[in-house]
Amino acid sequence: MAEAQPILVVGSVALDDIETPTERRPESLGGSGTFFSATASLFAPVRVVAVVGDDFPEAHLDALRHRAVDLSGLERVPGRTFRWRGRYGADFGDAETLDTQLNVFEHFDPKIPASHRASPVVFLANIHPALQLKVLDQIEKPRLVGLDTMNFWITGERTLLGQVLSRIDVLVINETEAELLSGEANIFRAADRIRAMGPQILVIKRGRFGALLFHPDGVFFVPAVPLRDVVDPTGAGDTFAAGMMGWLAAAGDDDFATFKRAVVNGTVTASFAVQGFSLDRVLSVGLPEIQARTAELLRLMDPN
Amino acid sequence: MAEAQPILVVGSVALDDIETPTERRPESLGGSGTFFSATASLFAPVRVVAVVGDDFPEAHLDALRHRAVDLSGLERVPGRTFRWRGRYGADFGDAETLDTQLNVFEHFDPKIPASHRASPVVFLANIHPALQLKVLDQIEKPRLVGLDTMNFWITGERTLLGQVLSRIDVLVINETEAELLSGEANIFRAADRIRAMGPQILVIKRGRFGALLFHPDGVFFVPAVPLRDVVDPTGAGDTFAAGMMGWLAAAGDDDFATFKRAVVNGTVTASFAVQGFSLDRVLSVGLPEIQARTAELLRLMDPN
Repeated sequence: MAEAQPILVVGSVALDDIETPTERRPESLGGSGTFFSATASLFAPVRVVAVVGDDFPEAHLDALRHRAVDLSGLERVPGRTFRWRGRYGADFGDAETLDTQLNVFEHFDPKIPASHRASPVVFLANIHPALQLKVLDQIEKPRLVGLDTMNFWITGERTLLGQVLSRIDVLVINETEAELLSGEANIFRAADRIRAMGPQILVIKRGRFGALLFHPDGVFFVPAVPLRDVVDPTGAGDTFAAGMMGWLAAAGDDDFATFKRAVVNGTVTASFAVQGFSLDRVLSVGLPEIQARTAELLRLMDPN
Repeated sequence: MAEAQPILVVGSVALDDIETPTERRPESLGGSGTFFSATASLFAPVRVVAVVGDDFPEAHLDALRHRAVDLSGLERVPGRTFRWRGRYGADFGDAETLDTQLNVFEHFDPKIPASHRASPVVFLANIHPALQLKVLDQIEKPRLVGLDTMNFWITGERTLLGQVLSRIDVLVINETEAELLSGEANIFRAADRIRAMGPQILVIKRGRFGALLFHPDGVFFVPAVPLRDVVDPTGAGDTFAAGMMGWLAAAGDDDFATFKRAVVNGTVTASFAVQGFSLDRVLSVGLPEIQARTAELLRLMDPN
């Protein structure tokens, strides 16, 4: 395999206040850009573009530095860091958002450093579609652009989101978002409609029910990793996308076979994320554990 | 492959009045014994034990005769046949039961004909656990006994159901039933508890999210067949069990590899059942179509 290609990710770096049935941890490290870069950096070099305030603890960045994440695109500006407070119920379904303070994120104007503009792989994490467009306007012919979004933008910024969708290669969303975006309850019909909006490749995540990959050369289903306990689902979607994009950056190929293994890798990295609070497990996991769990998942899927 | 072993099934033969968003058909052929035997007979000889009333149209049985189902254990008694009236919403989730008339089924006392007692494979469809016990008392050392049940018996006849569970080999239920039976929301914990009640092998169905097989030699996941349209979900569970038990009867083996393919076969036969009203598609499908769809499903699962 050739050397892994660098990935540029634009997302949030945040301070989370998370509450689960057994634990609460205020001021913990969070944000889509954080979860993504901590995970993708296991597979490829990662450059993160984001913004934090002057209250952001410098020590929080050590973990990303330890994984050689390029932080030269991380702006530090006066004011408070983006903060999110959420609570999970006993079923660990969708979080209940108790408070969102955009703070410095409100005026975030992503500036892609010159050294990052030719990144072959780009991931636009879940931020305002207007910002995602600004990033697309600054980058040069990437090999592959991945995108995440959420119900809030699908409902409130449909036109801008449509412009983003027409300019990206792979969209990673969950089943509820796919239904909202397409207006179709059937996941296969929804996929047709969404792919007609732009992305040739679509991954629909279904939480504990696994994920579906729609690729020009076929459809692939991967089940979730069997888990008996979930500690904190925060960041599951970002680590899924990171495992997938990291694999694609390392493989340097977008064919169906590579994408299938990329989705398997995303499934595995996400399974570790939810087994620890905040980024705890994302930061403690290594490649041997990921490989062992991948083998376990492939055994679960083997019909022979 | 050796000759397929005969399967004895004890269940209901009913007259259904089904309403979907697009169609209503009163007096259509229904019942777990009917769906099961029409499907399993594609793979192995089937003997059905059930009861109908004197109102039951003889012509309804022609379809089963056409598949060489042994109807010598089907009693016809004075009175009205078991009738069920149900309605499906646009999402084709669980049916809303509008009316249930047990009629002749209320006093059903299953009598297994002498010729059926040594059936190597037995399936106890979803009927009162007391009746399932009566069947078990009449049969002689079957190789494999499969069981279906439902929330109504799990809640109302827990003790009797426990006795049944301790005497069978494979239980086929859906995720909601597994949660209710085990008291565990996590499917992997639920499986442990249920298998401790008796059945060494457990299949948990998750509808459009596929099914999980728990076998002494491992766990296996099979996704649902991708479907863009559902016509009538009635009988999906019975045809799933029938495709699985039929495969096991034909294979004559209970090892993990055989069980995995049996669960794949059940997934495929159930996918046909829901594509037609009542038994329409179950009765029109043949082995070549089943084999083609099986190949399609296996491609969807292939990580390479």
